[in-house]
Amino acid sequence: MAVLNLDHIGIGVLDLDRALKVYATDLGLHLEETETLESMKLKVAKLSTGNTLIELIQPLPGEETMSKAIERRGEGIHHVCLTVDNVEAATKLLFDRGYKPVWDKPRTGASGRLVNFLSPKDTFGVLIELSQKP
Amino acid sequence: MAVLNLDHIGIGVLDLDRALKVYATDLGLHLEETETLESMKLKVAKLSTGNTLIELIQPLPGEETMSKAIERRGEGIHHVCLTVDNVEAATKLLFDRGYKPVWDKPRTGASGRLVNFLSPKDTFGVLIELSQKP
Repeated sequence: MAVLNLDHIGIGVLDLDRALKVYATDLGLHLEETETLESMKLKVAKLSTGNTLIELIQPLPGEETMSKAIERRGEGIHHVCLTVDNVEAATKLLFDRGYKPVWDKPRTGASGRLVNFLSPKDTFGVLIELSQKP
Repeated sequence: MAVLNLDHIGIGVLDLDRALKVYATDLGLHLEETETLESMKLKVAKLSTGNTLIELIQPLPGEETMSKAIERRGEGIHHVCLTVDNVEAATKLLFDRGYKPVWDKPRTGASGRLVNFLSPKDTFGVLIELSQKP
């Protein structure tokens, strides 16, 4: 498998507007885009650091995964997303080496990208999203 | 203040060799450099993701800050480092806006860089290192 870049760091927050005050207004990161992912019940703001993105992710009412993560660990970094050349091949390779990716096969995530996740148990505490550009 | 790039993500680990097996051997990130920072009692491996770095950081015997963080939260992401144009000006600006940077004035960190840190309390759970190239 080949990692092409670090696509973004995903930060779970409870109030996107308050987080944007810090990351965009005060730290000066450029707000590239804000979008609501209705099917995932998430509101996301993408900020550029120059070479990669920071995504601020707010769960909407009824959302479960991110909400539980914030409930358990507090607001903060939820995952790191690496772009790989072939996420299906990466999934297979990692299963073969004894890793436990979250899904047996990649699924389609935001922006139509094929994605899978590596468990923090396999990666020294870091939830790693593997993502492939369409 | 101007953020120039995301310099690295720092991941605290207890055993650098085991972590390198995952991040370098299995995920395929390129190991750029391994160094021991004697004064800080840290052993650091820098891996390239293509556009930024992941630093695996192992505390050595007698080290306190990283050791305590791992003891409290487990292995995982410890901080995110942003390169800024002027860390002294950034420190002043952030104090003026009500933030509580860790130090009143920047200090010299690894590689002779001037650095300061923003408290996770001010940044929705993320320890942010602000760093300026020498």
